[in-house]
Amino acid sequence: MRNLTLMTDFYELTMAQGYFKSDKMEKAVFDYFYRENPDDNGYVIFSGLEQVIDYAKNLEFNEDDLAYLQKQGLDPEFLEYLSNFSFTGDIYAVPEGSVVFPKEPILKVEATILQAQLLESAILNIINHQSLIATKAARIVKAAGERKVLEFGLRRAHGPDAGIYGARAAVIAGCTGTSNVLAGKEFDINISGTHAHSWVMSFDEEIEAFRTYAENFPDSCILLVDTYDTLESGVPNAIKVFEEMKEKGINPDLYGIRLDSGDLAYLSKQSRQMLDEAGFEDAVIVASSNLDEDIITSLDFQGAEIDVFGVGTKLITSKSDPALGGVYKLTQYRGESKIKISDNVDKITNPGSKKLLRVYDKKERKIIADLIALEDENIDEREDLILFDDRDTWKTKTLKGGNYQIRSMLTPIFDNGNCVYESPSVKEIKEYCKQEKESLWAEYRRLTNPHIMKVDLSSKLYNLKQNLLHENGIENA
Amino acid sequence: MRNLTLMTDFYELTMAQGYFKSDKMEKAVFDYFYRENPDDNGYVIFSGLEQVIDYAKNLEFNEDDLAYLQKQGLDPEFLEYLSNFSFTGDIYAVPEGSVVFPKEPILKVEATILQAQLLESAILNIINHQSLIATKAARIVKAAGERKVLEFGLRRAHGPDAGIYGARAAVIAGCTGTSNVLAGKEFDINISGTHAHSWVMSFDEEIEAFRTYAENFPDSCILLVDTYDTLESGVPNAIKVFEEMKEKGINPDLYGIRLDSGDLAYLSKQSRQMLDEAGFEDAVIVASSNLDEDIITSLDFQGAEIDVFGVGTKLITSKSDPALGGVYKLTQYRGESKIKISDNVDKITNPGSKKLLRVYDKKERKIIADLIALEDENIDEREDLILFDDRDTWKTKTLKGGNYQIRSMLTPIFDNGNCVYESPSVKEIKEYCKQEKESLWAEYRRLTNPHIMKVDLSSKLYNLKQNLLHENGIENA
Repeated sequence: MRNLTLMTDFYELTMAQGYFKSDKMEKAVFDYFYRENPDDNGYVIFSGLEQVIDYAKNLEFNEDDLAYLQKQGLDPEFLEYLSNFSFTGDIYAVPEGSVVFPKEPILKVEATILQAQLLESAILNIINHQSLIATKAARIVKAAGERKVLEFGLRRAHGPDAGIYGARAAVIAGCTGTSNVLAGKEFDINISGTHAHSWVMSFDEEIEAFRTYAENFPDSCILLVDTYDTLESGVPNAIKVFEEMKEKGINPDLYGIRLDSGDLAYLSKQSRQMLDEAGFEDAVIVASSNLDEDIITSLDFQGAEIDVFGVGTKLITSKSDPALGGVYKLTQYRGESKIKISDNVDKITNPGSKKLLRVYDKKERKIIADLIALEDENIDEREDLILFDDRDTWKTKTLKGGNYQIRSMLTPIFDNGNCVYESPSVKEIKEYCKQEKESLWAEYRRLTNPHIMKVDLSSKLYNLKQNLLHENGIENA
Repeated sequence: MRNLTLMTDFYELTMAQGYFKSDKMEKAVFDYFYRENPDDNGYVIFSGLEQVIDYAKNLEFNEDDLAYLQKQGLDPEFLEYLSNFSFTGDIYAVPEGSVVFPKEPILKVEATILQAQLLESAILNIINHQSLIATKAARIVKAAGERKVLEFGLRRAHGPDAGIYGARAAVIAGCTGTSNVLAGKEFDINISGTHAHSWVMSFDEEIEAFRTYAENFPDSCILLVDTYDTLESGVPNAIKVFEEMKEKGINPDLYGIRLDSGDLAYLSKQSRQMLDEAGFEDAVIVASSNLDEDIITSLDFQGAEIDVFGVGTKLITSKSDPALGGVYKLTQYRGESKIKISDNVDKITNPGSKKLLRVYDKKERKIIADLIALEDENIDEREDLILFDDRDTWKTKTLKGGNYQIRSMLTPIFDNGNCVYESPSVKEIKEYCKQEKESLWAEYRRLTNPHIMKVDLSSKLYNLKQNLLHENGIENA
C-alpha cells in the first residue's frame, strides 16, 4: 500500500495545527457535494469510495513525513500529536455506483474538526476524479446501447492513477472492459487488446502480420486493418486469413477487424459487406478513433456497422468537461449548524447534520425526487409528502401516502474510526450501478437536455437555513 | 517504489508474445512525438522523463504479475521469458524542461521490438500527462508575468498521481510552489497554504478566526477574507488583526489576504486601497477562483491589484485542452526504415532512426528552427544551411555559415539497459526550462496566435520519406 497520507493541501495541516494549538478538538460535520452535473448530464455516478476508505484506513504520519513537516515549520507538539494520529471519526456515504444529483450530501464526515479537515483533499481528489469518469463513461455506454464499450485511454490519462482508477470508474459505469492490465489485475475486470500498427509494420507484408497474429491468438483474433489501406489491403487480407483459419478447422471464439482511422461510417459499412460476402457474418467490427457519445450517436445515424467501441482520450479525460467541482463544506461544529454565505445564491451551503432520502414511485420503483432532511427527521410513508422547491417555494408537489417509498441513502462506512463497510467488488458495483441507472425514468437518462431531478429540502432544514441566513442579515435567499 | 510494470495496454503484451513466439527479436526504433500544441500554444514543455526512467529501470514481472497474465491466457514459454525480463535497450530524449514542437522526435527507443513495444503505454501516459500540464502552466505563468503562480489543483486532479506529477510539471514550467504536500516532499518544491472557509466558520466571529490564525502563524499570515462579506467584514477584520500584530511588534515575513470568490478585479482594487490606507502597503493580495491565463489577462486589463495567483482546476486538468495526443511510432526495424501511411498527410510518420537538431541564431541565441535529420547526418556550421518546408518545398530559408549554431537535442538516457543519465532536481529543471523559454523569440511565446516554429526535414530524410511513399504507391505526399 502506498503511503498517501501527505497527499493533501498544506492548508489542511496548518489548519489542523491551528485547531490543535487552540484546543479546538470538538466534533464537526462536513459534507461532500457537487454543484453541477458534468456535460449537462442528468446525474452523476458516485465512484471512488473504496479508495477513500483505503486512504482513511491508512492515514498515518511516518517518520519521514514528520521530518518533512518539521522542515516546513510545523510545531513540534503538533507533530508529536500527528505521530500517533489515526482517524477515529464516522463516515457515511451513498453506495458506490449510485446515481446522485447536485447539492445533495453524498458523503458525510463526523469527527473532530481536525480529523475531518485532514480528509478533505483526498476525498475531493478521489471522488471528483472517479465520479467524473464514471459519469462520462455512462454517457458513452448509453450512446452505445446494446453494444460493448471498451476503455482504451491509458495513454492519454493524467498519469498512472488516472489510467487505473479511470478504468475502474469506466467499468463501474458500464464499460465491458479495459486495455489497462494493471487495472484488470487490481480490480478483477476484463482486459482486452490485440495489436498495433507497429505489429503490421514490422512484417514485410500485411498478410504475413495478420497470419502470424492469427497463429498466435487463434481464439481471439481481431486484426487492425488500417495500417496501409483499409478497404484495398486491410480487409481483404483479414478475410484471406479468416479463410485460412476456416480451412484449418480453427473456430475462434471471437474474430474480426478493428478500424482505427478514417471515415468510420463508410469504412464499417463497406467492411461489413465485404466480410458478409465472404461468409464471415459473425466477424465483429471494432472501431476506435477519437470516439465519444456524440460521435457514436452520429455514426449510428449514418448506419455505421460497428459492434464494439474502443474509447480512449475523450472518456479517460472526460474531455468535454474534464473536472467535477465537488466540494467539502463544514455544516456543523460543536453541535451548532453552520452555513457558508455567498453573493451567489447557488453557493450558499445547506447547514446542519443531514440525511439524504430518496423518494421512489412505489409501483414503478423509479426516483421521483431526492429530499435532504435533518439527521433526526423521519418520514412516515403512509402520510402524504409535500415536496417544494427551495428557491421557488410556490412550486410544490404532493405525493399520496402509500404511493411512494423512502430510501435513506447514506450508509455507515466508518464508526468511531472502524471501517464497518465492506466494499463490493467492481463487478458488483457495476451491476448495482446498472440498477441505479434503471431507477431513473428515461427522461432523466437521455444525453441531451435531460429532466432535472428535484433535490428538495425538508421543511425543517429549509427553516433552519432561512433562520441562519436571517442571522447573517440575508432575507429570502 | 510502486510496481507499475503492468500499467500497460494489454496489446503490448499480446504483441510481445507474438514477437517472442515468432522469433522476431531484432532491433527496432520507436519515436515519441506529438502532432499539435495544446491550446494552440507556440510550444510544449517536455516533462515526465524522470518518471519514464523510473518505469524502465523497474520494469520487471513479479510472480503475482505472471500468475495474473497466465490467467489471461498468455503462453507459458512467453511468461517464463517475462520472468527474467529487464530492459536492455537504448533510450534518447531531449532534457526535461525543453521547449519542443509538433512532429519532432522528443524521445527515441532503440531495443528489440518486444522491449521497445513494452515501454509504449507508460511512455505515452507519463509524458503526455506531464508535458500537457507543464505547457498549460507555462501559459498561466506567462500571463502572470512577474507575479507568482501557485499550483492549487489537487482536489480537481484526476487522482493522486495527477495531483502529484501535475504539481511537479507545473513547477517545472514556472509555478513558484504547490499546495500539494506530497509533491513538495517528493520533489523538494515549495509548498504553501493557509486556511479555508471552514476555519473561519468554526469560530463564532471572523475576527477571532483571523486572530487565532495569526497567533499560530505569525511569520506567514494570509487571511481568507470572503467567508461572509469581503469588503464589509473580511478585509476590515484582517486589517484589525494586522494592526494588533504591529502593536505587538510582530513583523511577519509574509502577510496579506486571499480572495477566493466574487469580482476579483473590483474586490482586489478595493482591498488594496483599504490595506494601503491602513498603512499595510506591503500586505499581499492572493487571488484564487477559477483562474487561468485568460482570466489573469482580463484581470490585468481591468487593473486588478493581485500579487499572487493560486490556480487550481484549470491548470491541473488543462481544462481548455485536457489531452496531449503524443504517439509512439515504429520508424525502423531490422535496420529498415518504416513509415506509417495515412489518408491524412499530417499523420504520415517520418521514417528512420533520426536525430533532432536545433538551429540557433548565433548572436541572439534564439531558436530559428528545428531540423529533423537522419542519425548519421552531420551539419557543418561553417557552411550555409538551406531549410525548406516539407509540405511546401518551395518555401526555403538559407542560413549563412557562421551565423547559426546547431544543438543536438537527443541525449543518451539508457545505454544497453543501463541508465547513463542523472535526472536533475525539479528546481534545476525549472531553471533550465526558464532558459529554454527565453530561447524563443517573443512572437513564439505569446498566448494568442504565436508564430509557428519551423520543424523541417533534412534533404536526406526528405528523400528517404519520398522514396518510401513511392514504394507504397503514393506520389508527392
